[in-house]
Amino acid sequence: MPSPLASRPIGVFDSGIGGLTVTRALMERLPFENIVYFGDTARVPYGVKSTATIEQFAQQIVDFLMQQEVKLLVIACNTISAVAANKIRARVSVPVIDVIEAGARNAVAVTQNDAIGVIATPTTVNSNAYARGVHALNADARVYSQACPLLVPLVEEGWLDHPVTRLTVQEYLKPVLAEGIDTLVLGCTHYPLLKPLLAQEAGSSIKLVDSAVSVAEQVAATLSELGIANPQRAEPDYRYYVTDIPLRFQTVGERFLGRSLKHLEMVQL
Amino acid sequence: MPSPLASRPIGVFDSGIGGLTVTRALMERLPFENIVYFGDTARVPYGVKSTATIEQFAQQIVDFLMQQEVKLLVIACNTISAVAANKIRARVSVPVIDVIEAGARNAVAVTQNDAIGVIATPTTVNSNAYARGVHALNADARVYSQACPLLVPLVEEGWLDHPVTRLTVQEYLKPVLAEGIDTLVLGCTHYPLLKPLLAQEAGSSIKLVDSAVSVAEQVAATLSELGIANPQRAEPDYRYYVTDIPLRFQTVGERFLGRSLKHLEMVQL
Repeated sequence: MPSPLASRPIGVFDSGIGGLTVTRALMERLPFENIVYFGDTARVPYGVKSTATIEQFAQQIVDFLMQQEVKLLVIACNTISAVAANKIRARVSVPVIDVIEAGARNAVAVTQNDAIGVIATPTTVNSNAYARGVHALNADARVYSQACPLLVPLVEEGWLDHPVTRLTVQEYLKPVLAEGIDTLVLGCTHYPLLKPLLAQEAGSSIKLVDSAVSVAEQVAATLSELGIANPQRAEPDYRYYVTDIPLRFQTVGERFLGRSLKHLEMVQL
Repeated sequence: MPSPLASRPIGVFDSGIGGLTVTRALMERLPFENIVYFGDTARVPYGVKSTATIEQFAQQIVDFLMQQEVKLLVIACNTISAVAANKIRARVSVPVIDVIEAGARNAVAVTQNDAIGVIATPTTVNSNAYARGVHALNADARVYSQACPLLVPLVEEGWLDHPVTRLTVQEYLKPVLAEGIDTLVLGCTHYPLLKPLLAQEAGSSIKLVDSAVSVAEQVAATLSELGIANPQRAEPDYRYYVTDIPLRFQTVGERFLGRSLKHLEMVQL
C-alpha cells in the first residue's frame, strides 16, 4: 500500500521565476508528480538583499507551502539555498532539497581534476555556499567562483544569443577559465537558458553542471528511498502562486518553463 | 517672519538607491535644506512590478515620510511617478514634485524641433507617463520612448564606461536616434551616472535632459513661491532610511550620492 503522503504535491519555491527552470527539470524527470510552485515576484530579486531579510522572506514562503501539505520542499533559488537552507531544514518535518547541495554533489561526481568553477549572483558567491558544499564531499577540490550580476537581467531581456551577452560572458568567464577548471556549475536558476552560449564560451573541454537537472535527480532518489513517489499515472496537478504578476510575466515564465503556465494565482504573504 | 514649515525637511523617496542622484542634485541646488531620504531597498526594483503593487508600496512610504513631518515630497523614482503620482498628490497636503513632470517640463523647454526621446525602465515606458507629461505642455511634440532594462544593472555593476555598456547603449539608442530627436530625457534616476557615455553615443547635436537636475530646479522654485525655503544657513541635517542594507550598499550609495552616506537607518514598513 502506498504511503498516504505519495499523492501530495512537491513544493518548489524561488524568489521569482528562475525556479521554473527547476520545475521544468522536475516535470521532465518525474512526470506524474503534482507540483506547487511559489515565486516571490513582488520582492524579487533576493540576490542583492541582506541575509536577515532573505531569511525572513524564506520563512514566510515555507509556512505558505507547508499549509499546502507538500511532501517535499525544493529550494529552487541559489540565494535562499546559500543563506537559509539549514534554518529551513530545522523548521520543517519534510525532506528539503536545495539547488546548491544538489549542484555541488553533481560537480564533485563530474570533475576529474578537482578544479570546479561556479558562476552565480553576488550574494550566492559571497555566501561561499558552493565551496562549502563541494568541500563537504571532497576536501581536496578547489572551487573558483565568479559573481555575474548582469546575467539575470540579460536572460530576462531575452538576449540569450546577443553580442552583449557574449561579451559579458567572456568577461565573467575569463578569470575562472584561467584557473584550469574542468567543470563549471551554473549556480543560478536563470543560467540554464544561457547553456548553449556558456558551452561555446567555456569550450568543449569543460563540463557544465546544470543545478536544475541535479535537483530533479536528487528529488527522484529521495522520493524513491522514502517510498513516497506518486504511484498514480494520471495527469498531474500543477499550481503556481506568485506575490505579483508583472508585465510580460506569462511570456517570460513560459520561456523558463518550456510550456504554458496555467493555474496561476496571486497571493499576499 | 519665516513660515514654521521652513525648517522642516524635504522628503525624497525611491524604490532603492537611484533617488540618491536626485538627492545629490537637491543638495547642490539647495545646500541649506534638511533632507530625509527613503529607499525601499528590500523590495527594489519596482520597474518590473504591477501597478497595484507599486501603488501599495508607495502609499506605505508616503505615510512614513509624512510622519517625519516633511514640508515637501519628491518622488525620485520614475516608476512610482509614472503609476502613482496622482494618487499620492490626492493623499497628502504638502506639495509633491515628481521626476517625470519635472523632466517633461524641462524637455519641452529645451527642444527646438519638438522631437523628444525618452529612455527609461519598461514599466515607465509602458505607462506612457512622459508622453502624457510632454503633451500636457506641448500638444505638437512627438515623444519616442525606449525601454532599457539592462542599464540599471550595468550602473549597479559599476560598468559606467565598459564596452558592454557602450554596445548596450548603442543598441537601445538606435531606434530613438533614427527618429531625428534633438532632446533625450534620462528617464531613470540611475542614468545620470551614464551621462558621459550617453552623451558620446547620442552625439553632440542632442541635448540630454537630466531629470534629477530638473527636479532640483522645480523644488527650488516651489519652496520660494510658497515662502517655505529654509532661511537658516547652518549645516543641514541629512537622514537616510532604507528597508534593507544589502552588500555593497555603502559603496554603491556613495557613488550615487557623490559624498559619504551617514545617518543611515534600516526600518520596516
